[in-house]
Amino acid sequence: MSLTIKLHLITSHSHHLNLNFHTLNHHPTKFTSFNPNIRSKSIYHSDPLVSIVYNTKPRMHSPSRSVQAPIKSSLIDPDGGKLVDLVIPESERASRVLEAQALPKVSLSKIDFEWVHVISEGWASPLKGFMREDEYLQSLHFNSLRMKDGSVVNMSLPIVLAIDDETKERIGSSTNVGLVGPNGDLIAILRSIEIYKHNKEERIARTWGTTAPGLPYVEEVITSAGNWLIGGDLEVLEPIKYNDGLDNYRLSPQQLRKEFDSRQADAVFAFQLRNPVHNGHALLMNDTRRRLLEMGYKNPILLLHPLGGFTKADDVPLDVRMEQHSKVLEDGILDPETTIVAIFPSPMHYAGPTEVQWHAKARINAGANFYIVGRDPAGMGHPTENRDLYDPDHGKKVLSMAPGLEKLNILPFRVAAYDTVHKKMAFFDPSRAKEFLFISGTKMRNFAKTGENPPDGFMCPGGWKVLVNYYESLQTEEGSQQAAVLSA
Amino acid sequence: MSLTIKLHLITSHSHHLNLNFHTLNHHPTKFTSFNPNIRSKSIYHSDPLVSIVYNTKPRMHSPSRSVQAPIKSSLIDPDGGKLVDLVIPESERASRVLEAQALPKVSLSKIDFEWVHVISEGWASPLKGFMREDEYLQSLHFNSLRMKDGSVVNMSLPIVLAIDDETKERIGSSTNVGLVGPNGDLIAILRSIEIYKHNKEERIARTWGTTAPGLPYVEEVITSAGNWLIGGDLEVLEPIKYNDGLDNYRLSPQQLRKEFDSRQADAVFAFQLRNPVHNGHALLMNDTRRRLLEMGYKNPILLLHPLGGFTKADDVPLDVRMEQHSKVLEDGILDPETTIVAIFPSPMHYAGPTEVQWHAKARINAGANFYIVGRDPAGMGHPTENRDLYDPDHGKKVLSMAPGLEKLNILPFRVAAYDTVHKKMAFFDPSRAKEFLFISGTKMRNFAKTGENPPDGFMCPGGWKVLVNYYESLQTEEGSQQAAVLSA
Repeated sequence: MSLTIKLHLITSHSHHLNLNFHTLNHHPTKFTSFNPNIRSKSIYHSDPLVSIVYNTKPRMHSPSRSVQAPIKSSLIDPDGGKLVDLVIPESERASRVLEAQALPKVSLSKIDFEWVHVISEGWASPLKGFMREDEYLQSLHFNSLRMKDGSVVNMSLPIVLAIDDETKERIGSSTNVGLVGPNGDLIAILRSIEIYKHNKEERIARTWGTTAPGLPYVEEVITSAGNWLIGGDLEVLEPIKYNDGLDNYRLSPQQLRKEFDSRQADAVFAFQLRNPVHNGHALLMNDTRRRLLEMGYKNPILLLHPLGGFTKADDVPLDVRMEQHSKVLEDGILDPETTIVAIFPSPMHYAGPTEVQWHAKARINAGANFYIVGRDPAGMGHPTENRDLYDPDHGKKVLSMAPGLEKLNILPFRVAAYDTVHKKMAFFDPSRAKEFLFISGTKMRNFAKTGENPPDGFMCPGGWKVLVNYYESLQTEEGSQQAAVLSA
Repeated sequence: MSLTIKLHLITSHSHHLNLNFHTLNHHPTKFTSFNPNIRSKSIYHSDPLVSIVYNTKPRMHSPSRSVQAPIKSSLIDPDGGKLVDLVIPESERASRVLEAQALPKVSLSKIDFEWVHVISEGWASPLKGFMREDEYLQSLHFNSLRMKDGSVVNMSLPIVLAIDDETKERIGSSTNVGLVGPNGDLIAILRSIEIYKHNKEERIARTWGTTAPGLPYVEEVITSAGNWLIGGDLEVLEPIKYNDGLDNYRLSPQQLRKEFDSRQADAVFAFQLRNPVHNGHALLMNDTRRRLLEMGYKNPILLLHPLGGFTKADDVPLDVRMEQHSKVLEDGILDPETTIVAIFPSPMHYAGPTEVQWHAKARINAGANFYIVGRDPAGMGHPTENRDLYDPDHGKKVLSMAPGLEKLNILPFRVAAYDTVHKKMAFFDPSRAKEFLFISGTKMRNFAKTGENPPDGFMCPGGWKVLVNYYESLQTEEGSQQAAVLSA
């Protein structure tokens, strides 16, 4: 099955018409070898992922990441006043590569690589590299950094690079190191380094508010990490790419700001998500737009901003989610004219109230001046106890009080649930509580896994089909594996 | 043995001469029944505790805690601009007592009672009661509170009151409650209460950076506490007293500020401690004074400020420490003319970098504009691993960056150790490291326990004798208990 659709997701010019959309017809995508989340074959069986080629007509500003001029949106200033861009200008690249080759090397895991991406594009502005100890301590204790001029920026997650004893010894007294990506490429230089102790227990306790075993990021990243952290100023040799067919969705904060400007947005409201979009989500995004129009804004733009980095094993993978999001726009559940879909490249911590600040802060840097926050953002079940890890209300409360986020408009959302009378997702009405059905992420995944249909109006049929196909493909895969085991 | 000494510890007038010092001649002190740290008999066998009667000559301002006017020292403003004073004026006391008697009651533990004391005198200004959830969350996540005017004050420890399910149910929909002290007295009203969940695991992890079993404050206070926290505005029915012979040392921030003013101090440097003063401590306090004089200050005053609330079982008890401190001044190791000894009523958390902020912040409220910080402040050994719980340098680093403490001058101190060549405590000189001996608190206590003398010049003989006598008395007590068990 092949589709050519018109979808006004991403444009780089002010008239968002006549976009070039190419549909991948089950072409095997170039996958990098180091990304276990990106499968090396198509695993779902209907509509393939819609990929959008970023429009680079010569008459328009092509979004070059090596532009050094500060990009300021009129809507909201980036943290620190200037968007950080750490990609070396093309003219200097050759000499820096030579320099980097001669330096002691530090190997990056896949998630370290994602952080290099995040830092290099300025999502963490004004952070210019992996944290040194003074930044790490401020992040851990205060969820914020005090700048030299006395101003405060939010910085709730420690963005750090761990090394082991052997690497530390190999670095010796060198002041700079080269960073090697998971596929063996030299990708960056870290300058004026500082090596300090990695107290994992303290880092985990202060970031997650628990040290219980089973925290996905901890198990994936921290437990096996070295006992040292290395901070320094980052210089990335060339823009980070994943070659997974989704790079065109990976718009940098600079690109997003340009896009908002070219759309003449007078308000940008960001929606962070790591799950498929159901009609409850859509309801609140559309309702937010309605509220913004009521407030007098003429052209509010929605940034639908799925997280693209590490997620836990039972979350729906990025490529499936991206396809699902495309269907939601295609089916008209969200308005393509006023929506931009792009990937937020950060890995997921599942650190609740601590992480939601990061999610909001990064969107300030991307030019969003409104941020939608719901129940239990970045939360999950407690890994060892039968309860939510975080109080579901703490995320929005903490966000509303967080240092450095005062300039962002926080939009807490009302809970949406399935209205069994009107057969659609609606804002929960406590006066007729019994007529509402709450469908959790787990319940939704179970529906999709068992092939059972959710109630009518829960999700657009096209989007639902993407999920069903994904889970079917998983079962087929499992079945084949079991068969292979049996026959072995 | 009886002593009458002249010690210029505390004065309430500008000429600090002719003070009245009374020596207790082993009179049994009035001990309250609820304080297990205060023994009901004298346990040491030489010089009894020196008690100082606070001078209240009529021509001077008597330090009344019910004075409502804001006390501002010229040296440093209290946090929030105005020192909190929550003791009900005497004229209104009778009616409030009647009101309190009719309210649902909440029983306070000994440590809750210490916090009532701390809050009521304004050590935690601008906090006006036990924290409501918004204050608790800001404290936990940001170690600071944002005020309505946008300014930020430091607030690193959650100052909270826990209640159990049964108490919560008993309170019902009442908006005010009465607080009952550990000895059964009605001591305060908590108004406009808010009850919210007490997630102990999260509180512990974010406050201590570990959830390992064996944290003294956690075991004493949190583990057995209820699953709810109750916040509200505090009104204390009368000034908090312990009746343990040490109340005259318990100067409120208001009293301390008056004292600094009357002494015409142009700098006040606070030294927080929970241990006996050895000559290394004295060296750095005297050296700090020298540095302040060099900086041009004419009359720097030292606030020697031992912590008076809960401490862990193997710390030296408050009364013994107070006697030891008296000896240090009596022996001339510290200058009585320029030193004020008073008790800081807070309980101890042993929460390292998180707690040192509280220790510093409270001293701002008491009028100190310089704060001395050493190695591993408020630290201890990891309860389950063979290492320090905190990086010994993190305390001073975190303190120097902490939000809300910018106005305080932090004085990090150089490490002092025993110089075996010059036979005295001296600042450690790395060029002749082998000639220095580090004597830890544990080592010091072991010396005192075994009756072995520490090296000459480690501590003044009078102060040392206090410790030796204390540990001898402990052994005698243990011996009697064992004998009693054997004969039973």
